[in-house]
Amino acid sequence: MAFQEKKLINDPNDVVTEFIEGLIETYPNLQYLDGFPQIKVVVRADVSSSTYDKVAVISGGGSGHEPAHAGFVGEGMLTAAICGDVFASPPVDSILAGIRAVTGVKGCLLVVKNYTGDRLNFGLAAEQAKSEGYKVEMVIVGDDCALPPPRGIAGRRGLAGTILVHKVAGAAAAAGRDLADVTAEAKNASQLVGTMGVALSVCTLPGQVTSDRLGPGKMELGLGIHGEPGAAVVDLQPVDIVISHVLKQILSTETQYVPITRGSRVVLLINGLGATPLMELMIAAGKAVPQLQLEHGLAVDKVYTGSFMTSLDMAGFSISIMKADESILKRLDAPTRAPSWPVGADGVRPPAKIPLPVPPCHSKKIDEEPSRPEQLNVHGIILEAGIEAAANAIIDLKDSLNEWDGKVGDGDCGSTMFRGAMAILEDMKSHYPLNDAAETVNEIASSIRRVMGGTSGIIYDIFFKAAYAKLKENKETVVLPKQWAGALEASIAAVSKYGGASAGYRTMLDALIPALAVLHERLDAGDDPLTAFLLSSEAASSGAESTKDMPAQAGRSSYISPEILSTVPDPGAMAVAAWYRAAALAVKNKCQ
Amino acid sequence: MAFQEKKLINDPNDVVTEFIEGLIETYPNLQYLDGFPQIKVVVRADVSSSTYDKVAVISGGGSGHEPAHAGFVGEGMLTAAICGDVFASPPVDSILAGIRAVTGVKGCLLVVKNYTGDRLNFGLAAEQAKSEGYKVEMVIVGDDCALPPPRGIAGRRGLAGTILVHKVAGAAAAAGRDLADVTAEAKNASQLVGTMGVALSVCTLPGQVTSDRLGPGKMELGLGIHGEPGAAVVDLQPVDIVISHVLKQILSTETQYVPITRGSRVVLLINGLGATPLMELMIAAGKAVPQLQLEHGLAVDKVYTGSFMTSLDMAGFSISIMKADESILKRLDAPTRAPSWPVGADGVRPPAKIPLPVPPCHSKKIDEEPSRPEQLNVHGIILEAGIEAAANAIIDLKDSLNEWDGKVGDGDCGSTMFRGAMAILEDMKSHYPLNDAAETVNEIASSIRRVMGGTSGIIYDIFFKAAYAKLKENKETVVLPKQWAGALEASIAAVSKYGGASAGYRTMLDALIPALAVLHERLDAGDDPLTAFLLSSEAASSGAESTKDMPAQAGRSSYISPEILSTVPDPGAMAVAAWYRAAALAVKNKCQ
Repeated sequence: MAFQEKKLINDPNDVVTEFIEGLIETYPNLQYLDGFPQIKVVVRADVSSSTYDKVAVISGGGSGHEPAHAGFVGEGMLTAAICGDVFASPPVDSILAGIRAVTGVKGCLLVVKNYTGDRLNFGLAAEQAKSEGYKVEMVIVGDDCALPPPRGIAGRRGLAGTILVHKVAGAAAAAGRDLADVTAEAKNASQLVGTMGVALSVCTLPGQVTSDRLGPGKMELGLGIHGEPGAAVVDLQPVDIVISHVLKQILSTETQYVPITRGSRVVLLINGLGATPLMELMIAAGKAVPQLQLEHGLAVDKVYTGSFMTSLDMAGFSISIMKADESILKRLDAPTRAPSWPVGADGVRPPAKIPLPVPPCHSKKIDEEPSRPEQLNVHGIILEAGIEAAANAIIDLKDSLNEWDGKVGDGDCGSTMFRGAMAILEDMKSHYPLNDAAETVNEIASSIRRVMGGTSGIIYDIFFKAAYAKLKENKETVVLPKQWAGALEASIAAVSKYGGASAGYRTMLDALIPALAVLHERLDAGDDPLTAFLLSSEAASSGAESTKDMPAQAGRSSYISPEILSTVPDPGAMAVAAWYRAAALAVKNKCQ
Repeated sequence: MAFQEKKLINDPNDVVTEFIEGLIETYPNLQYLDGFPQIKVVVRADVSSSTYDKVAVISGGGSGHEPAHAGFVGEGMLTAAICGDVFASPPVDSILAGIRAVTGVKGCLLVVKNYTGDRLNFGLAAEQAKSEGYKVEMVIVGDDCALPPPRGIAGRRGLAGTILVHKVAGAAAAAGRDLADVTAEAKNASQLVGTMGVALSVCTLPGQVTSDRLGPGKMELGLGIHGEPGAAVVDLQPVDIVISHVLKQILSTETQYVPITRGSRVVLLINGLGATPLMELMIAAGKAVPQLQLEHGLAVDKVYTGSFMTSLDMAGFSISIMKADESILKRLDAPTRAPSWPVGADGVRPPAKIPLPVPPCHSKKIDEEPSRPEQLNVHGIILEAGIEAAANAIIDLKDSLNEWDGKVGDGDCGSTMFRGAMAILEDMKSHYPLNDAAETVNEIASSIRRVMGGTSGIIYDIFFKAAYAKLKENKETVVLPKQWAGALEASIAAVSKYGGASAGYRTMLDALIPALAVLHERLDAGDDPLTAFLLSSEAASSGAESTKDMPAQAGRSSYISPEILSTVPDPGAMAVAAWYRAAALAVKNKCQ
């Protein structure tokens, strides 16, 4: 339980004022009234009571439910939010200050969650404001569906459904409706929404110790947003079952808390309680929709998923369902600048999934089975000789590679490379299109992908894919020496970029980079290509040997003592040197 | 620790596909490729590769970082997001499917966080896509500032700063820039941002047991988004100090990870790691801004606060700082439909706080000290007699009220009412403006507010405030009997609405409601007002007595046995009956 008590705050008494300061730093469209620490009121920066010509919509209550309510202040939603201390109703003077700050000639609507303290404090402020000449109305929201009626004088609690009432009221006000209309729309919305929560943990008040009312493997159904006990503590179950239970409770025909019947159109709100990752909220949304459709016969017009009305660091979520006619949907879809109202939930829903795309037609060869030509031309014969020699060099070097790798890595470099070499030899016989050099290089990549795992497999896959992409820029099947050099350069660039290594990092690049440098140099100097290839392969060998003298690399070989490290070349570089040298010799022999 | 292991999910193996299903239910502008469970790709519903004429911006990586990356898919930001399993790089085939689904003639940019698996898999997919004829570029983001250089082959990790790179790249693409330009802007952005995290807990993989690497009272600095160990585990400190440390580390002139110097303009991103309430994130934002300004000499142009790149249910946050020139700010401010990009963070910042509003001029009397007239007129004399008698009736009834309340409540009803009555008598002598009935009623509310606490205090405050507001509708200082009845009606409505009770709930309303009914009835019948008042007060008395026969109210007196309950009238109703009857008698005597 100890972890639950840790919070990243300063003085627990200052959390609400410091929250508001951060909120205002984040959202330039919000301001707060200069009444800290007693008066904590967030208002729209663009509204002044002396000129405001819309109905002001004001809400608030105890803090600890962030982003509610201050995060919903903005054009098209709340005009002001009155913040109490954590889980404590705001004092009358705060509410009155908020009313005075934003209420113009059209008056204001107070949207209040049904808790006695909120009702009384907002009520007294309303009466005081009326006596000052303001037009004031109040709508009290009690959307809780967890406990059966009768609920007595306390009534049903106000929960996350209140956010939807804010939106309806705010949009009606923004549309220029008068106070009576805005009030009527908000009241109607409040009667169309039902909510029930489920929690895995209770919340911790800043500076206090967590209750452990719930035990391991338990969850609580129907709890309140202040951690007050709910309807039942039960065994934790898969979320499918939890949702099924909650939906049945909200839509119960016994309580008739919401006037929703089969065939109704509804809006779904999945509300995180503070410490629930978005992944879990989205899973709940994805499961609730088909249940509402199939088991309850409802059309789900809109889904809002996120953390709207939280309970400090409580783990869990609540589900709200609102009956949605056209007028409600219009208000929910109306634009708002309130920062915490979800964006992107509006619009017409296309099919959820679309078919996997097929590769584009300009690479149709991917769909065609490659095949070994019945007759190799001269280029195919030379290519085959080079590949065969290279593969055999790796096969011969298997034990040495494993030995070196055993000293600086996990000791399987030789075995992994051996698998790749064997597959290349096998696949070459069966289907490499050797008269087409580029496509053959692509097939080498496929062979490697088929049998080699791990980092070295994907690195070699990238190596040959990059070469293939470069070679394909040439439309001919015959590849000139300079084009081979270009392909090698592209391969090295890709391996370096995606693998993250540079020269001197004790990798295959320490053989490849010097080899490429010599190859370019000799070809540019006009040397015979075969000679250039051989000289280049000698550079690869000495580059590989030189890895012994290279320093350890952080996170790779830094845990090995410098004495041992200086006796071991990098096995990746040694493998390159071996196959590159073997290929160069074989090509030279075949050409002579 | 047990609580940390509970999750509201189904099969732990299905969390990513079920997350995507819920995401698509929530956001109609998103679709996914029909390749579950292997291929998990979220794409913009309005983009088809065959017609798309902008550069596609694609990102992704392991899941568990929600909303990253799928929540940032939308016009103006990502074109597609490739989702791996939890904390596992997505396979090459998924990435390739995503590229093929959204990449048009202008090509695509892959934005990849710097992890070996992501680099290699995205790299191989890029090379494959290139070989299929696509234009593909990649930018690798490594914004971690926790560990000192050299970072070797692994390099700096990609953290929440990546989100800002997505936004810059997406906005550049939406502006119609070509692939080279979009790539250059993304690369530039990636080099301007630095990030460091702090955590209070490590995360729990679905279906697995939580590590307890951190102990009670400890936090971890510089950790990674997969829960990998960070730079140091230290004692938990106030968030001010934590932020100071993190900012110094990011802006360190030794590592020079970000090219930010005194006088630079910067953007701040406070990123929740999954289980951190918004309250704590906002507190961090509010503290980081002045530190950046005052201690580091930076201009903070923009603040983003929320959960962008999480780590499942980890508690904590990361801070990212990006150097912001005009071109960066333009890209960050550009519109996007990506659902998880914050709204409302743009715009010009007005002063954070505005002065508390003063009461409006049409109620100026509030500022004036009320005073007792030197000479009472006839109305004032009658009013004083009524008030005095009512107060004395309460004083006389103190012990009985306490006794009744001791049986059904907390036993202080008499004492509380006594305090109010004494204050009224005292204040009336000193300053009630008795010749003005409405203002006197307002002063009664003030006396009550001054000395009576609890629910009964605020209820009576509301009672008199509502009467005052109603009486003030009449501009005259003389109040007619029908107007008194109207005021009583307004008071009852307010008490019922804000207090939540109705007739039969065993409250003061059970005296007031019958009293009002009789008053209206007799006045409408043309009775003498004094007689009507007296008859009304008799109705109040019998109404109060009848509360003995009323059933218990849920949450109020339901814990008391019916036998006891039937012997006790409601003390609130009895108090009303007493003061109302006394006032009626006194007024009648004074008038005769």
